[in-house]
Amino acid sequence: MRISEKFVHLNTEHVGFSLEFSPAKTTQGMQNLYDRIERMAAYGPAFIDITWGAGGSHSNLTTEMVATAQADFGLDTMMHLICTGMEQGKFEAALQESYNAGCQNILALRGDPPRDKEKWEATDGGFKYAVDLVRYIRKKYGDYFDICVAGYPEGHPECSTASESIQHLKDKVDAGANFIITQMFYDVDNYIDWVQKCRAAGISCPIIPGIMPIQSWDAFLRRAKWMNATIPKHFLDELEPVKDDDAQVRERGTKLMVQMCQRLIETGTVHLHFYTMNLEKATKMILEGLGLLQQGDTCTNKPPLPWQRSLTLKRSKEDVRPIFWKNRQKSYIARTQEWDEFPNGRWGDSKSPAFGDHHGYGLGLRVKHEQVYELWGHPSSYTDVSNIFVKYLKGELQCLPWSETPMSSEGGYIRDQLIRVNEMGYLTINSQPAVASVKSSHPDFGWGPPNGYVYQKAYLEMFVHPDLLDSLLSNAERDPLVGYYAVGKSGELRTNMPKEGATAVTWGVFPCREIVQPTIVEANSFLAWRDEAYQLGNDWSKSYRSTSASRKLLDELVKSWVLCVIVHNDYHDKDAIFRIFDGLKAVSDLRQQASDH
Amino acid sequence: MRISEKFVHLNTEHVGFSLEFSPAKTTQGMQNLYDRIERMAAYGPAFIDITWGAGGSHSNLTTEMVATAQADFGLDTMMHLICTGMEQGKFEAALQESYNAGCQNILALRGDPPRDKEKWEATDGGFKYAVDLVRYIRKKYGDYFDICVAGYPEGHPECSTASESIQHLKDKVDAGANFIITQMFYDVDNYIDWVQKCRAAGISCPIIPGIMPIQSWDAFLRRAKWMNATIPKHFLDELEPVKDDDAQVRERGTKLMVQMCQRLIETGTVHLHFYTMNLEKATKMILEGLGLLQQGDTCTNKPPLPWQRSLTLKRSKEDVRPIFWKNRQKSYIARTQEWDEFPNGRWGDSKSPAFGDHHGYGLGLRVKHEQVYELWGHPSSYTDVSNIFVKYLKGELQCLPWSETPMSSEGGYIRDQLIRVNEMGYLTINSQPAVASVKSSHPDFGWGPPNGYVYQKAYLEMFVHPDLLDSLLSNAERDPLVGYYAVGKSGELRTNMPKEGATAVTWGVFPCREIVQPTIVEANSFLAWRDEAYQLGNDWSKSYRSTSASRKLLDELVKSWVLCVIVHNDYHDKDAIFRIFDGLKAVSDLRQQASDH
Repeated sequence: MRISEKFVHLNTEHVGFSLEFSPAKTTQGMQNLYDRIERMAAYGPAFIDITWGAGGSHSNLTTEMVATAQADFGLDTMMHLICTGMEQGKFEAALQESYNAGCQNILALRGDPPRDKEKWEATDGGFKYAVDLVRYIRKKYGDYFDICVAGYPEGHPECSTASESIQHLKDKVDAGANFIITQMFYDVDNYIDWVQKCRAAGISCPIIPGIMPIQSWDAFLRRAKWMNATIPKHFLDELEPVKDDDAQVRERGTKLMVQMCQRLIETGTVHLHFYTMNLEKATKMILEGLGLLQQGDTCTNKPPLPWQRSLTLKRSKEDVRPIFWKNRQKSYIARTQEWDEFPNGRWGDSKSPAFGDHHGYGLGLRVKHEQVYELWGHPSSYTDVSNIFVKYLKGELQCLPWSETPMSSEGGYIRDQLIRVNEMGYLTINSQPAVASVKSSHPDFGWGPPNGYVYQKAYLEMFVHPDLLDSLLSNAERDPLVGYYAVGKSGELRTNMPKEGATAVTWGVFPCREIVQPTIVEANSFLAWRDEAYQLGNDWSKSYRSTSASRKLLDELVKSWVLCVIVHNDYHDKDAIFRIFDGLKAVSDLRQQASDH
Repeated sequence: MRISEKFVHLNTEHVGFSLEFSPAKTTQGMQNLYDRIERMAAYGPAFIDITWGAGGSHSNLTTEMVATAQADFGLDTMMHLICTGMEQGKFEAALQESYNAGCQNILALRGDPPRDKEKWEATDGGFKYAVDLVRYIRKKYGDYFDICVAGYPEGHPECSTASESIQHLKDKVDAGANFIITQMFYDVDNYIDWVQKCRAAGISCPIIPGIMPIQSWDAFLRRAKWMNATIPKHFLDELEPVKDDDAQVRERGTKLMVQMCQRLIETGTVHLHFYTMNLEKATKMILEGLGLLQQGDTCTNKPPLPWQRSLTLKRSKEDVRPIFWKNRQKSYIARTQEWDEFPNGRWGDSKSPAFGDHHGYGLGLRVKHEQVYELWGHPSSYTDVSNIFVKYLKGELQCLPWSETPMSSEGGYIRDQLIRVNEMGYLTINSQPAVASVKSSHPDFGWGPPNGYVYQKAYLEMFVHPDLLDSLLSNAERDPLVGYYAVGKSGELRTNMPKEGATAVTWGVFPCREIVQPTIVEANSFLAWRDEAYQLGNDWSKSYRSTSASRKLLDELVKSWVLCVIVHNDYHDKDAIFRIFDGLKAVSDLRQQASDH
């Protein structure tokens, strides 16, 4: 989405913000950064932006990060593009990748001179000024991209006068830029004055102040100097006395930045841009201080779908997913990334597109061996395993091999029943409660546009001991409103569902729209997920030494237990799905039985 | 659908029936026959069958009737096919037409000799016996068609012995026939005996008795003689004394036939085939006597969709229609008959297929001038017109120019509100009440498979006086849950709905299925319907002399009134759509106002 469309919904009562990140230098650094971006995405930024790899050496990481943010995190993203060291063909390639990622926002910069050169020079066949880049993008892509340009409230170092600098800015806007983000500054009075001059000069597009959080004394001074930012006296008065205590600097710095942002908002600012420097804490503290942290993206009340939408071009029409990757969305995106066309609501009926192989990056268990022991210990009995699942349900564990994220808030509605089922030894790895007609604004179940109603059929996905399977399925078959799929690591699918088609388990009814049915249960995807589900169990098992009791136990589980998904079709009866377990044996009863003989 | 699939659901507690019709000889006769078939379809036959035009002269009417029954009436149909006067190419053509119509059932007969010949002779290159025709169909079409053959409980006139006749029947079954319908008979003992002989001879497929209702004394004797049917003595004892009184013959004949059918059911018959002779009353009386009339098609509890599904091959995937032709289904089918592909649930999004021209057969007002005067009188004021609409709503009129059928049972739920609106002068031509979650078995709103829930958003479609339009639409716009389209005979569409896409106004949630959304409101179809709606008004107007007050009034209505459709999106609030009219002026207020000045 073009960012300018978001600005129109903002006002000083509903202030938006954005977060800037830069490619990290190592693979591990990139992984940590992705985790951080995902966490910070929950703060609710209107968009994030990714700087262009300095000197071009990390530029492929920039386009990768843009694509990941759009696809995996569903974040509207702006890609930086600089003139430094770029031949013309490179602009075209970068813009095309941005286009394919569904990214519609470019920050067009001249860029700093390369580290080995004092003075900026255009690359042969490249552009000399940001304004040339703006013109190039407009000419090649029409209005497809929003173009942002940089503003310099304290003047550009290479411009002799403030008015010359403003004239250059106006040239960029006239060439087609949609909005302006400023360089960092601490002098608010000067900024307000500069904005007025810009307006007087005929610049009417949105101007977004760039905010640099204060992380430490040294960094504060260094960055201000590098960016030629004047430091007001009261900043120094506050910070210098505690300059050797980073925590104190950050705390006092936060107060200063919150005051500064409040002043900006009072004088009409509706959006703040944060230079995070890839750090989390200082930005979070300012957002908290401003009361923006919980508020989230002020442009939308609820996400458009109950899962995180991908924003890449190819996936723009995607409006349905099978339930099985609910707790492993990245894996789903990776496995379906080669799909040319998303089935767009008719998933079940369409030619079933193959699910990609599951041996890709990040598709196996991503937890390291030491973490495995710390998280899940060394189970030596099925009761131990049950207890791990119960601890997860109680919120005492943050993840399971099959769930990368903690228990969801909607899970709370059926926590007690899930605990009972897991204590019996039916190991649930995915579930949702039945919901009959709640408003689309509901805090836990809501999604989609306002004034709608959303619904869910209850489902449970679980591993079942092979000796318990027949009674479970015969209980399920006794209720004409229950559908199930069951399959072992290898072997045939058992089901009472229709061979073709899908069961919608989440749907929404909204004003002036067709019915939206974004999650389904369906056989082809279940069989594709089956392989991944058993692989994850296998990965867990392999974390233990080959002679250990845990390894033996988990290998047995993977080998013989059966993966089942059960849907209850009467969404008006919230407890119905759990009544299937009434009168069933527990795994501990089997052991008892065995030892009785 | 193949009829044999229906038989498996039948038993002596749930008896099915079917109705035979023959092409009529004149265009008006055909039109009356279609009307009659449509009425009799409401009795709930499992299927109907259409005889082959005698001697081939009416054979194109046979295929037309098969196609109409399948497409317009949604009736599973069986086509007769005879050897008389047929070259081989004709079989192929007839079977292909049947195939295209979605008809999967053929009654293969030798046929009677042409009227000008005493003895039956094969046509050059044609088939001599029905068994040859059975083999031909099986060879060409595999199992696509169910094939029915005729059985002769009283022996075939050209067979010397009963066992020879049964052997011929067995040959036809062995050649691939799926079931047998017998010639008419009145001697039940003989029939039961004959069925036992058939079973003993190894004929195991379903045997359906052919029932000839008694219409009059002469016809009764003539047909029995023609078909070599023995008349039991008690038939003659009952009927002869009243032979000159057709009504008495029909009444006593009905009693005799009901007794006969009850005896057949007691001895294991699960399906009765009626030779209607294109007449309604006698068959209806027997069905009433047997308690089968209200029961309907015992194979399905509810129709699969809220509108009458077409059974042609091309339309087999059709699962969504715009609301606008709700009261003119045949017109919708005619206008969309060239569509190659039915949009299958994605109507709004798909490339919008053009609606065919509306100047086809049966698309204008089908009521004759004299009937117009009788039905709707000679309105000379808008109050007169309002009163016509109110009378329709009260059940005192069976049709309106825009509604071919009487007020539906679901209309009863909002009758009083509709009357109020029409009394105000807003002329409603189509509507449905809001329904939030009723069982799919609901007597008035139910459709689709059992154990589901169905929903409706309320909508109203009406003609609005141009001076009342602005207040109506501004009331509508005040409620964020209201969407509308409004357009005059010519001119631009006014709407507050999204430009693209559709609003689902009927949907159902069923076990182990996707959500089904069979009716929608959408702009392209509304604009196509607009032309037809004004044309119908025009046709009504043209029924009056050009100098008459009615003509002047209706011309003015067609010229200046605006067609509006309003949807209320909160289906939980049944009265919400009618609150839009609170505080609005009535047409009579406008007149008052005008005369005040």
